[in-house]
Amino acid sequence: MCLVDIVIFIKLLVYTSAMVVIVKYGEIALKGKNRIDFERKLIKNIKDCLKKNNIEFGQVKRLSGRILIETDQKCDCLNYVYGISSYSYASKVKTDVDEIKKEALKQYKTGTFRVSVKRVDKVLDKSPEIEKKVGAYIVQQKNAKVKLKDYDVCINVEIFKENSFVYSEKIKGLGGLPVGIEGKVCAVLEDDDSVEAAKLMMKRGCEVVLYKLKDVNYDELKKYEYGFKLREVDKVPNYVAAVVTSEKLETLKDRSFGKPVLRPLVAY
Amino acid sequence: MCLVDIVIFIKLLVYTSAMVVIVKYGEIALKGKNRIDFERKLIKNIKDCLKKNNIEFGQVKRLSGRILIETDQKCDCLNYVYGISSYSYASKVKTDVDEIKKEALKQYKTGTFRVSVKRVDKVLDKSPEIEKKVGAYIVQQKNAKVKLKDYDVCINVEIFKENSFVYSEKIKGLGGLPVGIEGKVCAVLEDDDSVEAAKLMMKRGCEVVLYKLKDVNYDELKKYEYGFKLREVDKVPNYVAAVVTSEKLETLKDRSFGKPVLRPLVAY
Repeated sequence: MCLVDIVIFIKLLVYTSAMVVIVKYGEIALKGKNRIDFERKLIKNIKDCLKKNNIEFGQVKRLSGRILIETDQKCDCLNYVYGISSYSYASKVKTDVDEIKKEALKQYKTGTFRVSVKRVDKVLDKSPEIEKKVGAYIVQQKNAKVKLKDYDVCINVEIFKENSFVYSEKIKGLGGLPVGIEGKVCAVLEDDDSVEAAKLMMKRGCEVVLYKLKDVNYDELKKYEYGFKLREVDKVPNYVAAVVTSEKLETLKDRSFGKPVLRPLVAY
Repeated sequence: MCLVDIVIFIKLLVYTSAMVVIVKYGEIALKGKNRIDFERKLIKNIKDCLKKNNIEFGQVKRLSGRILIETDQKCDCLNYVYGISSYSYASKVKTDVDEIKKEALKQYKTGTFRVSVKRVDKVLDKSPEIEKKVGAYIVQQKNAKVKLKDYDVCINVEIFKENSFVYSEKIKGLGGLPVGIEGKVCAVLEDDDSVEAAKLMMKRGCEVVLYKLKDVNYDELKKYEYGFKLREVDKVPNYVAAVVTSEKLETLKDRSFGKPVLRPLVAY
């Protein structure tokens, strides 16, 4: 544990936030994968991302198919973490209908709305009843109109035993698999499309090392460099499973790298 | 010209339909492609599709970025033609506001609606004025409600010099490129995913020949066999540009076929 880690560790111990970020990851991405590996790697990558971007955070933990990040800061950097299907900034309140009502009202701004309650722990009333109570409160206070389809705002409530979370916005993530869950591949940098090809393999969970044949600017890739370190190599290393090129049908080449060649742009 | 072709040719001369199918193809698919090649190949594939499915049709012609098919029959088979982004069954009427009004009224069934007019030839009034007139007529006759967003029905009118077309439904097509616009590839049949891999390459415009390593059922592929003939080969032929396999990252193999290997499922 280096000094920086110790400082972060101490911060964690004393850190409590009124906000959390709720991260969702698509079940569909887990087909044929080991779910636990997926979640562990995703958590590791998220922590790496937050540290690199100097975001103060408390715990990052898995809870009933979500990852909760304790932080009061904006985490735009999550837009560049593969494996996240969406994330939301949520307010943490005590699990109590009145507390939830108050927070929901605060988050309602304008237009038609609906309330969507999910009881992860089966406490309080049944979900439809809580939805009705919270909805009625907003209607009464703001004279707002409920609409179950084509609403302007959806106020989401996720209920856990002690604390509940209220949020009204869902930010779309990149999807895909967490980088590092699949093997390492070697991306050949030879044109602008090379960066795109490498990104596609990262999205499928591959760590990428870069074999620079031409002087291609790969700053774009650095935005996605969480959970691993991007590095350049001067020949195809033995430890990679495959070589990635940017060939398309029109530019197909028959070259040998001594490893299977992946051309992710070919059917894209 | 064989006998069947002569019979079809004679039919074409005498065929006039009250309906047309309007086929749209995404501009986005044309990036870096020769548009004329794309359109010619798509028309050829559409005609092949209609013939194979015993659909009587008159002319199939390109007109201002659309393909118009003269036919009074249902053309569900178009669901399997790559390169089509959407198609609609449209009624053909004389280019005259009253005729358009009548046909639009006939197509309005229930719920909120809007009218969307596109003047391909600049005749009659300006589009917003025709929209207003046609819309007002439906409101008056049916007591229907106009809604510009989140409507139940959109009645589309495409105005050409002599005839105009009215339609209210858009059926989504497969997208992609017309089969045959790119080179030929050889798909290795060795598991169920092989069929999926071959389909992806067809979607990118490749004709596919089949190298059957294992006894895989490829009936699914026959649905998309328009504009070319599917056939089996017993070794990788010289004339193909590449070999297509169904490998994924987890099943990556390092085999040589003497041709570049495409693994379209690897980043899918």
